[in-house]
Amino acid sequence: MTFQVQIKVMPLNDLLDPQGKAVLGGLHNLGLTGIQDVRVGKHITLKIDAANEAAAKEMAETAAKKLLANAVMEFFEIEFVQ
Amino acid sequence: MTFQVQIKVMPLNDLLDPQGKAVLGGLHNLGLTGIQDVRVGKHITLKIDAANEAAAKEMAETAAKKLLANAVMEFFEIEFVQ
Repeated sequence: MTFQVQIKVMPLNDLLDPQGKAVLGGLHNLGLTGIQDVRVGKHITLKIDAANEAAAKEMAETAAKKLLANAVMEFFEIEFVQ
Repeated sequence: MTFQVQIKVMPLNDLLDPQGKAVLGGLHNLGLTGIQDVRVGKHITLKIDAANEAAAKEMAETAAKKLLANAVMEFFEIEFVQ
C-alpha cells in the first residue's frame, strides 16, 4: 500500500529564527503590521510504499531523524494524509 | 485577538522538484527504499493580531500571495491552529 505522509520540520521554539525575523520585516514593509511573529521551517511530503501504516510511520520517523531534521536545532511532526 | 496560522508552500505538482529528488536519493542511500517520492517545500507559522478570523485569514492570504509563495512555481495552503 502507498501512504502519503507529511513531515513538518520547524526550528525549536527556544531558538531564534533569523529567516522568520527577515520575513516578518518584509511583511511589515508590505503594510501587514498585524503579523507579530513568523517562523519558517520545511514541509516535506513523502510517498511511502509499506505493508501497513505502522511500518510507513516507522520509515517516516527514521527518515526525519536521520536526514530531514537536525535534532539540535529543529523538531518534527509527522502526519498521515488520507 | 491573536490567531496562529500555518501556511504550507509547496512546489506545483506539475513541476520537477530537484531538492526533493536529492533528498529521495539520500533516503535510498540510508536503506529507506520504500520511499517512492519526496517533495520539499516551506512551512511558515504566523502569529496574527486581528479583530476576527476572517481578517486574520485575509492577512495571511495577502502575505502568502505577495511575499511567501511564488505563484509561478508554488502553491500554498492556509490552516488555522486552534
